[in-house]
Amino acid sequence: MKPVCIRNISRAPAAIVDAFAHHNVATVHEAMGRIGLMKPYMRPVWPGAHIAGSAVTVLAQPGDNWMLHVAVEQCQTGDVLVVACTADCTDGMFGDLLATSLMARGVRGLVIDAGCRDVRDLQAMGFPVWSRAISAKGTVKATLGSVNIPVVCAGALVNPGDVVIADDDGVAVCPRSDAEAVLAAARTREANEVAKRKRLAAGELGLDIYNMRETLAKAGLVYRDYSNKS
Amino acid sequence: MKPVCIRNISRAPAAIVDAFAHHNVATVHEAMGRIGLMKPYMRPVWPGAHIAGSAVTVLAQPGDNWMLHVAVEQCQTGDVLVVACTADCTDGMFGDLLATSLMARGVRGLVIDAGCRDVRDLQAMGFPVWSRAISAKGTVKATLGSVNIPVVCAGALVNPGDVVIADDDGVAVCPRSDAEAVLAAARTREANEVAKRKRLAAGELGLDIYNMRETLAKAGLVYRDYSNKS
Amino acid sequence: MKPVCIRNISRAPAAIVDAFAHHNVATVHEAMGRIGLMKPYMRPVWPGAHIAGSAVTVLAQPGDNWMLHVAVEQCQTGDVLVVACTADCTDGMFGDLLATSLMARGVRGLVIDAGCRDVRDLQAMGFPVWSRAISAKGTVKATLGSVNIPVVCAGALVNPGDVVIADDDGVAVCPRSDAEAVLAAARTREANEVAKRKRLAAGELGLDIYNMRETLAKAGLVYRDYSNKS
Amino acid sequence: MKPVCIRNISRAPAAIVDAFAHHNVATVHEAMGRIGLMKPYMRPVWPGAHIAGSAVTVLAQPGDNWMLHVAVEQCQTGDVLVVACTADCTDGMFGDLLATSLMARGVRGLVIDAGCRDVRDLQAMGFPVWSRAISAKGTVKATLGSVNIPVVCAGALVNPGDVVIADDDGVAVCPRSDAEAVLAAARTREANEVAKRKRLAAGELGLDIYNMRETLAKAGLVYRDYSNKS
Amino acid sequence: MKPVCIRNISRAPAAIVDAFAHHNVATVHEAMGRIGLMKPYMRPVWPGAHIAGSAVTVLAQPGDNWMLHVAVEQCQTGDVLVVACTADCTDGMFGDLLATSLMARGVRGLVIDAGCRDVRDLQAMGFPVWSRAISAKGTVKATLGSVNIPVVCAGALVNPGDVVIADDDGVAVCPRSDAEAVLAAARTREANEVAKRKRLAAGELGLDIYNMRETLAKAGLVYRDYSNKS
Amino acid sequence: MKPVCIRNISRAPAAIVDAFAHHNVATVHEAMGRIGLMKPYMRPVWPGAHIAGSAVTVLAQPGDNWMLHVAVEQCQTGDVLVVACTADCTDGMFGDLLATSLMARGVRGLVIDAGCRDVRDLQAMGFPVWSRAISAKGTVKATLGSVNIPVVCAGALVNPGDVVIADDDGVAVCPRSDAEAVLAAARTREANEVAKRKRLAAGELGLDIYNMRETLAKAGLVYRDYSNKS
Repeated sequence: MKPVCIRNISRAPAAIVDAFAHHNVATVHEAMGRIGLMKPYMRPVWPGAHIAGSAVTVLAQPGDNWMLHVAVEQCQTGDVLVVACTADCTDGMFGDLLATSLMARGVRGLVIDAGCRDVRDLQAMGFPVWSRAISAKGTVKATLGSVNIPVVCAGALVNPGDVVIADDDGVAVCPRSDAEAVLAAARTREANEVAKRKRLAAGELGLDIYNMRETLAKAGLVYRDYSNKS
Repeated sequence: MKPVCIRNISRAPAAIVDAFAHHNVATVHEAMGRIGLMKPYMRPVWPGAHIAGSAVTVLAQPGDNWMLHVAVEQCQTGDVLVVACTADCTDGMFGDLLATSLMARGVRGLVIDAGCRDVRDLQAMGFPVWSRAISAKGTVKATLGSVNIPVVCAGALVNPGDVVIADDDGVAVCPRSDAEAVLAAARTREANEVAKRKRLAAGELGLDIYNMRETLAKAGLVYRDYSNKS
Repeated sequence: MKPVCIRNISRAPAAIVDAFAHHNVATVHEAMGRIGLMKPYMRPVWPGAHIAGSAVTVLAQPGDNWMLHVAVEQCQTGDVLVVACTADCTDGMFGDLLATSLMARGVRGLVIDAGCRDVRDLQAMGFPVWSRAISAKGTVKATLGSVNIPVVCAGALVNPGDVVIADDDGVAVCPRSDAEAVLAAARTREANEVAKRKRLAAGELGLDIYNMRETLAKAGLVYRDYSNKS
Repeated sequence: MKPVCIRNISRAPAAIVDAFAHHNVATVHEAMGRIGLMKPYMRPVWPGAHIAGSAVTVLAQPGDNWMLHVAVEQCQTGDVLVVACTADCTDGMFGDLLATSLMARGVRGLVIDAGCRDVRDLQAMGFPVWSRAISAKGTVKATLGSVNIPVVCAGALVNPGDVVIADDDGVAVCPRSDAEAVLAAARTREANEVAKRKRLAAGELGLDIYNMRETLAKAGLVYRDYSNKS
Repeated sequence: MKPVCIRNISRAPAAIVDAFAHHNVATVHEAMGRIGLMKPYMRPVWPGAHIAGSAVTVLAQPGDNWMLHVAVEQCQTGDVLVVACTADCTDGMFGDLLATSLMARGVRGLVIDAGCRDVRDLQAMGFPVWSRAISAKGTVKATLGSVNIPVVCAGALVNPGDVVIADDDGVAVCPRSDAEAVLAAARTREANEVAKRKRLAAGELGLDIYNMRETLAKAGLVYRDYSNKS
Repeated sequence: MKPVCIRNISRAPAAIVDAFAHHNVATVHEAMGRIGLMKPYMRPVWPGAHIAGSAVTVLAQPGDNWMLHVAVEQCQTGDVLVVACTADCTDGMFGDLLATSLMARGVRGLVIDAGCRDVRDLQAMGFPVWSRAISAKGTVKATLGSVNIPVVCAGALVNPGDVVIADDDGVAVCPRSDAEAVLAAARTREANEVAKRKRLAAGELGLDIYNMRETLAKAGLVYRDYSNKS
């Protein structure tokens, strides 16, 4: 693999990308057929953010944030920067200076399979980050990686231009070509849940709403009363 | 083991269960003789909740939340749902819909040795959850487990009807038959601590309050002044 | 190793120690030459605190907080208590009573390579703690350790009297003899960053500010336009 | 909980206990209905051993092996010593001296949810140990625990007198009262597997032996030929 | 994502695939430009095996090995079965029966991002497995996944037909289209290393062989003699 | 910290260093007063080696093995190379080429708080390594570190010239100045254990040999006979 920086990637239409931010990560993941999630070790460095954007991807060497500077130039309004490393790393590869630079370009957030620092400043700035660790450990700028190639970030394949959705539950990735269909499925799903939520709040049981009683019995579930010997 | 759902479990008297919520997890654990804690990986998904309730227990297959729906029907006001899995799992086996259903039945919270999702909604709803992970990963409803059998949850044995206490420090479990005695011991302990806290705040040393100086000397502790060569 | 408690340790001048609190952990770590950090598993038990102080050190047995009581007496205003264990431990070796005692002596915070409990009370009291875990697990007072000997805490060597800086990014340790020089370097570094932050906020790229383009090209980075086959 | 040492526990008949050693852990676990396993972090400190025995249980304080000495006296020929701790611990709480003592009493092996040391000597002596860690870290003898009470060891509930089976796959626990029935089920299962193994070795497919094709189709599995665009 | 089983995948020429087995994982990884490795938690369940083969891929639900049975039918001589899960899992999803079936089809080994059981039998049979865990935990056959779609296994992207190389150092994946070029690069690299190994064995220093002295000096390395004050 | 390579370090007398190899890590650790151990995650990459030697230390950047080449030149017969990293790292920073070079200089082994590769070759060569991981991940040679400064390796402070002892139980470090005294204590301890081992093998109980019965009773241990209700 030769180090490369790919320019002018394709993105999904802004209207579609933006609409994903109305759906949470769990819904999008279900709408995709229960796939596309990053591992749960990816956590927001501050709570409450909910974003959707187009992925600009970085494959970096662990402990080396040189390529993040290269990637900034490839970002535009509405993007989310996604950083993968060639080996597990918790170093603080991102902080308030890079965040300042990304905000100046309209980037909506960062997803990094490594550490992040300056977390208090990031919260004050309102720049959301999902990372595997919080660490003040500084990095070098010594070895090349690549920008906008397909990467595996926290267990998920991310192609440049894919839609990235992130909230307090974690991070999901939707392939660019599936974005429209997944969005539609997410909408249907959410509408469906509103109705269910009302019935459950009124005290109806999931057992009845989902018609589970017969299937449970067929599968062999037995009901028995408690006794002190049980 | 045949899958089973036990109905009509015994619970400790409500007055006793409710009184536990005035004591924190650390106090209850000490009052029990320094046992009965779940592992510290069990963390609240949002901070600040403090509950006590009667355990309704679930043994679920990892990644399968079918039995949670079965368990909801067995819950009543004042209960805490406790979910163990047959193998380690971080999937998001619980979210806002199940929480809506449990709240409709007066359940006080959930303790789950797996993942939880919709954490922001749960905080907005005021439904507290202690879990080993936060994950948007969806689950299936395919394989039976059991409800209200003894389970091992995060390293602690939980029998149905045991008192579960949870706060920002973690989760403790008090056997139903010991509840009254443990509650009394917790009260004594807390009263005792109030006095100590005052003395410590006034600058008295634990060394003196607990009469440690002689024991330390007997055990061989030597005091020496600092020198640059030390 | 005989158990020992060293009295009257040397500390850096108060003016220098206090000045460190104006610089964050990441800055101090960089100013030291990218060393001196504790591992990132050391996290604040409540967010927002930022302290600097002189280290009083403890080497404790895992699950035994006897020596913490010994150490309290050696603390004075402006100190930070640093607790290392002879083996990995997550037990709640510290809680609100010890915090009350430390606050009465003017101690600024605790750094403990073990667990901490009563976290909600600690936040209410405004006493900051950095720990590897939150756990209600109680401890014994049975076996001696030492106070104010050099310890390894979360991967960092801490000598008594070293300056400890802690914020939401983690914990750094600056040797007492280097404190003045590191502080000066931190100041220079921070001044330098203010200027950079402005340029980045105005849309200038790190690539240009740091003159990276030539070095990247020399290292072999190739730019290429995106194609669907790439 | 008052510290206690229970004497003269009940055990399953020797013929039944011994017969378990002809079945591996996976088989016994399946015969029990896919339960009763300790967590997979419990690993043999040397490979190749396969034992079954009656559990003598210990609840110890982390880093304190005092109660192991108490437990030795309660052991008899055919037993397996099972050690749980009140908090996670990797210290080397067991070594060649205790092994010598246990071998002198006819104990078949040790299962310890903590660390073990002298692993090379243990292999030379032929004394098998399953532990969560290998560590030379020494322990104290300072705080009481209990012997022959129910314990949770590596996530599994173990009552004194239960049958413990351990091999290179891990450790399983069969309640004493279920031992005979589980043994019978294990035998049936194994006989059944011999036949299947022959058919599979001859090239028959599991898809056909287990009649999966129809169920897979009904569940919605689609077969498609590979194309470069897939 | 609809569950699918892709038949008749393309593979690299047998001569090329087979030749990879003469090179170890580290060499292949370097020849690819230091990429293509699975995470180091993937370990052989028994030591000493070294294989190369064409990937048949499975995306399975955690704790559910149904799709492995589907995949067996798609395997042919010279293949390596690669199993990814939709969430982290350590259950024993593979054992001696499936190994018997795979051996009957000429499959060279298994790479599974989950647990494996019957490890002693597998060693006796000579069937090599790389897994993230050893666990006797049994699995269900209840939920569909897919066969021969691109999967992320232990952090590496694997497309069906890619070349998988595995030895005691871990597992590498070489894209099918790059196989010939990578093989050539591996050969060159290995030849180069033979010469270096001789020079190093003769006492020549890497500092001189790689001409590092000047670069080190330029980077600022200072040599100094030891003093007791250093 | 300026990068530096310290030459001509002091070592303990060869006769003393060599004598340590007759004592295992657990014994040395106990003889030092139960300190000086590296964390138990440090494991031999192949079993059965037992070495003692003088530490040559390296502080390296994670994923960068440049300084190992610098360190080789500082090694002499009887040394053990000890490598620490400035941040957690599992990359394969050491392999058969560096081992060849170290063997040519008479180095007895490597202790590295990072990954190691070529483990099969290392076993064939008889060069022992203790590491935190096995990984084929290659490294760069881009950023300076230091040689023969004090380092923290796997939680233990190592000064250049300290005695390093390693066996299947782990790694211990004895300060150079304490080497003679610790060696004497280890000898005494071992002699003492021989006698105990004989008595234990003859069936005497530790309870009696160590006179524990009275202390246990005083501490409150109660003996009770088993009943089915206990």
